[in-house]
Amino acid sequence: MDLKKIAEILECDFSGENFEVTKMNTLKDATKSELSFVANSKYIKDIQNSNAGAIIVDGHTKDFVPKGCAALVVEHPYWEMARISKYFAPPVEDATLPEPKIGKGTVISPKAEIANGAVIGENCTIMAHVYIGANTVIGDNTIIYPGVVIYRDCIVGSECIIHANSTIGSDGFGFATNKMGEHKKIYQNGNAVIEDDVEIGSSTTIDRAVFGTTLIKRGVRIDNLVQIGHNCVIGEYSVIVAQSGIAGSTTLGRNVVLGGQSATAGHLSIAPFTTMAARSGVTKSIEKSGLTFAGFPLMEHRVWLKLQGKIARLIK
Amino acid sequence: MDLKKIAEILECDFSGENFEVTKMNTLKDATKSELSFVANSKYIKDIQNSNAGAIIVDGHTKDFVPKGCAALVVEHPYWEMARISKYFAPPVEDATLPEPKIGKGTVISPKAEIANGAVIGENCTIMAHVYIGANTVIGDNTIIYPGVVIYRDCIVGSECIIHANSTIGSDGFGFATNKMGEHKKIYQNGNAVIEDDVEIGSSTTIDRAVFGTTLIKRGVRIDNLVQIGHNCVIGEYSVIVAQSGIAGSTTLGRNVVLGGQSATAGHLSIAPFTTMAARSGVTKSIEKSGLTFAGFPLMEHRVWLKLQGKIARLIK
Amino acid sequence: MDLKKIAEILECDFSGENFEVTKMNTLKDATKSELSFVANSKYIKDIQNSNAGAIIVDGHTKDFVPKGCAALVVEHPYWEMARISKYFAPPVEDATLPEPKIGKGTVISPKAEIANGAVIGENCTIMAHVYIGANTVIGDNTIIYPGVVIYRDCIVGSECIIHANSTIGSDGFGFATNKMGEHKKIYQNGNAVIEDDVEIGSSTTIDRAVFGTTLIKRGVRIDNLVQIGHNCVIGEYSVIVAQSGIAGSTTLGRNVVLGGQSATAGHLSIAPFTTMAARSGVTKSIEKSGLTFAGFPLMEHRVWLKLQGKIARLIK
Repeated sequence: MDLKKIAEILECDFSGENFEVTKMNTLKDATKSELSFVANSKYIKDIQNSNAGAIIVDGHTKDFVPKGCAALVVEHPYWEMARISKYFAPPVEDATLPEPKIGKGTVISPKAEIANGAVIGENCTIMAHVYIGANTVIGDNTIIYPGVVIYRDCIVGSECIIHANSTIGSDGFGFATNKMGEHKKIYQNGNAVIEDDVEIGSSTTIDRAVFGTTLIKRGVRIDNLVQIGHNCVIGEYSVIVAQSGIAGSTTLGRNVVLGGQSATAGHLSIAPFTTMAARSGVTKSIEKSGLTFAGFPLMEHRVWLKLQGKIARLIK
Repeated sequence: MDLKKIAEILECDFSGENFEVTKMNTLKDATKSELSFVANSKYIKDIQNSNAGAIIVDGHTKDFVPKGCAALVVEHPYWEMARISKYFAPPVEDATLPEPKIGKGTVISPKAEIANGAVIGENCTIMAHVYIGANTVIGDNTIIYPGVVIYRDCIVGSECIIHANSTIGSDGFGFATNKMGEHKKIYQNGNAVIEDDVEIGSSTTIDRAVFGTTLIKRGVRIDNLVQIGHNCVIGEYSVIVAQSGIAGSTTLGRNVVLGGQSATAGHLSIAPFTTMAARSGVTKSIEKSGLTFAGFPLMEHRVWLKLQGKIARLIK
Repeated sequence: MDLKKIAEILECDFSGENFEVTKMNTLKDATKSELSFVANSKYIKDIQNSNAGAIIVDGHTKDFVPKGCAALVVEHPYWEMARISKYFAPPVEDATLPEPKIGKGTVISPKAEIANGAVIGENCTIMAHVYIGANTVIGDNTIIYPGVVIYRDCIVGSECIIHANSTIGSDGFGFATNKMGEHKKIYQNGNAVIEDDVEIGSSTTIDRAVFGTTLIKRGVRIDNLVQIGHNCVIGEYSVIVAQSGIAGSTTLGRNVVLGGQSATAGHLSIAPFTTMAARSGVTKSIEKSGLTFAGFPLMEHRVWLKLQGKIARLIK
C-alpha cells in the first residue's frame, strides 16, 4: 500500500514524496520503505534516530520527525496505527501460494492440514489434526504431535518436539483503546521462530510478534501450559516450567530457569544463568548473571527464606 | 419429562398436579414449567419467592414451598438434583437436526466439523479441525482458528476472532458430593454466549452455564490460557490477561482489567473500570468503580505498594 | 536391546553375562531383566537393595552394585541414562499393530484418528479431531470431546468424560543437563492411567510417567487448564480446581481438594481429605489427614487468616 493511500485512510496530509510502504515497524527497526508511529512523547529520541520512511505522529511529536521522513499527523497515533495495521495483515491462508513442499522421509497424517506455501524438511512426523500455516517452514527430524497449530509465516527448526494441542504464532495480545474504552485490534504481522533442538509441552502458547519475531533459541525446554508473549526472546537452553507466563517483549538470556507458575512482566531483560524459584513474579530486569530469586515481589532466594522466617515469627 | 416420572426417579411423592417439566433452573429464574431445588436452608426466602413449578426440597425446607408449586421431598436435594440433571442433558450431537446452514462468503475447511443444527453467518473463516456443536450459532465476519471447539447450543457474535485450540461452552465444574466423598456430575445444561467484536486467545476455556448463560459481552479482549467459569458475565470491553481465572458466577462490569495470572473467587461482582494488577487474587466484591487493586489478599494498589515497603524494611 | 549393545553405546565395559534388557526403570522398581541408573550417591542404599539386572553407575557408586547385577560404569550416569532412554522409546505410531478394536454401540467421528493397536470399549462417544494412540485402551460409556489427544500405551476407564483439547499421556518434563548447560531428553517410556468415573476439563494436561504410570484414580474431578506432572498419583475422588499444577511424582490421597491456581512441588505426599485453599503452594508433604491449608509458603488456613490480620495491622 502506498503512503498516499495510508494518508487517505488516516484522513491526514503527509509531507514528502509518495512511496510504496512495505510494512509497519518500530521506530528503532523501521527502514526507508517502512511505516512507524509514536504514541508517547517519551520516545522523542527514537523519532529523531529513526530510519522509518514515514511516521504516524500527533501535534506534540511531529516536529521531531527527521528530514526525509514523512510525518502523518493525527490526533491519536496509537489508535490510528492499530487501524492501519489491518491493511498490512496477510490473509490467514492463501490459495495462490505454491503447494506445500514435503521433504524425503517425512510422514504426514492425512488428517493433518498443511497450508499452501509451507515447507517441511526431511524425516519429520506430522501427526493427525496438526495445522501448519502458509509459508511456515519446518526443519528436519521434527515431531509435531496431534492438535498442534502453527500459524502462517513461522519457522520451526530441526530436531524439535512439539507436544499436543500447543499453539505457535497466534496473535499477541495487542490493541489500542480509545476514550470510550473501546478497543481496536493491532494486527500482529510479525512471526514466531523456534530454533533447533527445542521441546515444547502440551497446550503451551507462543504468540507471534506484532512486528519482527518472537524467538525461542536453540535447546530451550518449555513445559505444558506456558504462555510466551509477543516479541519475547528466550535464550539458549533456558528451561520454563509448567504454567509460567512471560509477558511481551521480555528477553531471557541463556540457561535461565523459570520455576512452575512463575511470571515476568513485559519489556524486561533477564541475565543468563538466572534461576527463578516456582511462583516467582519478576517485575524488574535482572542484570547480574547466575543468581537465584524467589517471591513476588521478587527478591534473592536467600532473602526470601529470611523473610519467611520473619513472617513465621510474626505469626507466633 | 413429566413431574410424575421425576418423582419416580427420586423415589418420592409430589404434591399438586402432574405437568411436563421443560428444564431445571435456579429458584430465582425458574418459571412455572421448570424444576428447581434448594440445597441449603439459607435460601428459604428464595423458595418463598420462586415461580418454579416444582422444587426438590428436604424435610427442613419443604414447608416454605409456595402454594401451587410442587414439593419433591428427598433427603439430599443437591445430590438428587445432580442425579436428575442428567435427564435434561441433550445428546452431544443429534443427527435428526437439520443440516448446518452456512452464510454467503463463508469459507469452511473440509477438515472442520460442523454439527447438525449449527448456523454460521456470512464471510466467516472456519479453519481446519474446528468443531462447532449442534444448534450453535455464529455471526458474520468471524474468524475461528484451527483446533477451536465450540460445544452445542452456544452463540458467537459477529466480528469475533477466536484463536487456536480454545474451547467455548465446555461443561462447568459442577458436582454434588455425598457423605462417602463420592461425586455426582451436575449436567451443565446452560450455554455460553460471546457477543460481537470479542477476541479470544489460544487455549482459553470458557465454560457453559449450569443453568442460563455464561456471557462474554461486546468488545471483550481475552488473552491465552484464561479460564472463565460457568455462569460468569464479563462486561463490555473488559480485558483479561493471560493465565487469569474467573471462578463461577462472578460478574465483571464494563472495562474491568485483570492483569496476568489474576484470579477471582466465585459469586463476586466487580465494579466497572476496576483494574487488577497482575497476580491479584479477588475474594470480595468490588462496589466502587475506577479503583486499582493488587495482591492476595486483595488491597488497593497504593496500599500494596506501602506494604511492600514495610516488608522490605522487615527484611533488613 | 541386549546389555552388550548398551555398553557399546555407552562406550564402557560391563561385568557379568550379557542379557536382553526389556526396559529401563528406577532402582526400586527394576527387575532382573531391566536396566536402572544411579545419579547421586545419596541413593547408595537403593543400589544395594535393587533387583535391577544392570545399573548405570559412576566411579563413586560402582562398588555398591549388588552381586549378580551388571555395573555399567560411566562418568555422567544421568546424562548417559538420558542418552540410552531414546533406544527404549517405541515409535509414536506403529502400522504393524492390529487395526483398532471398537466395541458395540461406540460412535467414532470419521474425523477422529484411532491408531493401530487401540482398543475402545462399548457405547463410547469419540468426537471429531480426537486422537487415540497406539495400544491405548478406553473403557465403556466414556465420552471424549473434540480435540482431545491421548498418547500411546495409556488407559482410560469406563464412565469417564474428557473435555475438549485436553492431552493425556504427553511426555513428562524430563532431561539431563551437562556442564555446558545443554539438555538431553529423557524419553518418557511410562504411561498414564485414568481409572473409571473420572471427569477431566478442557485444555488440561496429564503427563505420562518416565517409568511406570501416572495414575488418576476412580472418581477424580479435574477442572480446566490443570497440569499433572509425570508419575503423579491422584487419589480417589480428589478435586483439582482450574489452573492448578501438580509437579512430578507427587501423590495425593483420596478426597484431596486443591483450590484454583494451587500448586504442589514434586515428590510430595498429601494425606487424604486434605483441603488446600485457592493459590496454595505446597512444598512439604502433609501427613495428617483432614486439615485445611492456605498460602505460599503453606500454613494451616486458620494461621493464614491470623497472618492476614497481622499484615493488615502492619499496613496501618
